[in-house]
Amino acid sequence: MEKLKRNERIAAIMKILGDQPNKIFTLNYFTERFFAAKSTISEDIMVVKQSMEKMRLGKIQTISGAAGGVKYIPFVTEEQNKEILENICCYLSQGERILPGGFLYMADVIYSPQKIHQLGEVFTSQFDYREVDYIITVETKGIPLALMVAKAMNLPLVILRRDSKVTEGSTVSINYVSGSTGKIQKMSLSRRAIKPNSKVIIIDDFMKAGGTAKGMVDMMKEFDTQVEAIGVLIGTKEPQEKLVKDYIPLLILEEVKEKEGFINIYPNPELV
Amino acid sequence: MEKLKRNERIAAIMKILGDQPNKIFTLNYFTERFFAAKSTISEDIMVVKQSMEKMRLGKIQTISGAAGGVKYIPFVTEEQNKEILENICCYLSQGERILPGGFLYMADVIYSPQKIHQLGEVFTSQFDYREVDYIITVETKGIPLALMVAKAMNLPLVILRRDSKVTEGSTVSINYVSGSTGKIQKMSLSRRAIKPNSKVIIIDDFMKAGGTAKGMVDMMKEFDTQVEAIGVLIGTKEPQEKLVKDYIPLLILEEVKEKEGFINIYPNPELV
Repeated sequence: MEKLKRNERIAAIMKILGDQPNKIFTLNYFTERFFAAKSTISEDIMVVKQSMEKMRLGKIQTISGAAGGVKYIPFVTEEQNKEILENICCYLSQGERILPGGFLYMADVIYSPQKIHQLGEVFTSQFDYREVDYIITVETKGIPLALMVAKAMNLPLVILRRDSKVTEGSTVSINYVSGSTGKIQKMSLSRRAIKPNSKVIIIDDFMKAGGTAKGMVDMMKEFDTQVEAIGVLIGTKEPQEKLVKDYIPLLILEEVKEKEGFINIYPNPELV
Repeated sequence: MEKLKRNERIAAIMKILGDQPNKIFTLNYFTERFFAAKSTISEDIMVVKQSMEKMRLGKIQTISGAAGGVKYIPFVTEEQNKEILENICCYLSQGERILPGGFLYMADVIYSPQKIHQLGEVFTSQFDYREVDYIITVETKGIPLALMVAKAMNLPLVILRRDSKVTEGSTVSINYVSGSTGKIQKMSLSRRAIKPNSKVIIIDDFMKAGGTAKGMVDMMKEFDTQVEAIGVLIGTKEPQEKLVKDYIPLLILEEVKEKEGFINIYPNPELV
């Protein structure tokens, strides 16, 4: 392989770090990959670090010691939050999204890779995930968002199923009550999915009464696992008292007027 | 904002391009963001391009003309395919994955953000997606992989549901026959999800007889939509005759010996 110039090495280091957020790369990894001295690579990394800071594109952290190295940490400032979240609200408040019963059609937004990539980084900037082991969600609509959060935090994703499947092996199933409809529902999870005594963050697309989130919290108890935080893309303003405490909504849905085609949704004021 | 040095600008340009593969950024976008002249930005982009080529980290394409600009295209060489796919096979052939009935537990692999990010780029390198409008999958296990493919190709993801939901609005539902069990199943899709006369690529995690893929193909006919390609992570060797033609499996599962705890899975020889 051809030896790279400093400029080119910097671009390649940025690409490698940016592709795998929160993964630690050793200096040796780079010295071997670029046939360059440690001191050279260290200087390159300083340039990348400066660049990310000046442009507010995230953080570069160097870790010293035997297990040391360097990693890229996504970070979104309050100002950037505001821009990202207002942009999403702009999409979600289009009147034609209103469905019979006052539901909102959101699939095009919550399945858009670019939009949820940004939302994943917003979540990443809200939580202390340094000791977290897994990102948890339940099928179906929250999966893309939860995956993007998991990618940004470099954590495995665990998906709770509505039914137990032959491809899950032995499972734990629980019943839970949907807070808004009062209907009894089921969720299940493979026994292998989570190591006991883990710490998790729960991510979902929508929370009204919080019944589904409460179900996920209950499921985590079955795995002797601690829920460190709960994040949802949209939380409804009413009911204000949810079945779970301490959750972070990125957006707050205050009102949907079906007849008038009016949707009042805005960024969580605590984040912007 | 502080003005950046050339090295720092190169790192930032790489980060911005790499974060949104296949999205075209105009030169003006960069000149405004960096307070730099067009000629300066063009030189920076040349460095990034050289770096990606020399390190085989993908391609940088510059598009001239009024709608012109620059974009990053993920690209994985055959040699890199081999490494990525062999690594996945190594995980998937662990005997303890075998479940009753000869099924494989794969959730930890197919929900791993880092692993499927790489697999998404492998798919991206196999398909001509320049005229494709959507990536299609069906819930649940294929969603993370399909999302990563959609992100790499900069295309919206569409998820077919097993049941129609109130949050989907008016839907089209079809019945299809699972090729391996002969059971009749249902899938549904919101009428708003796909514009007529679109082109799509179907992505799923697993194909045995191809009944589910056939169901997705039939659903696309209901939307006057053309299926350009079908990609699955794992295709079983038997039955060799699937219900759909022209599908690309990344891995081939030849045999699972439940008693012996033996799994024979290998990269599709046509890709490595």
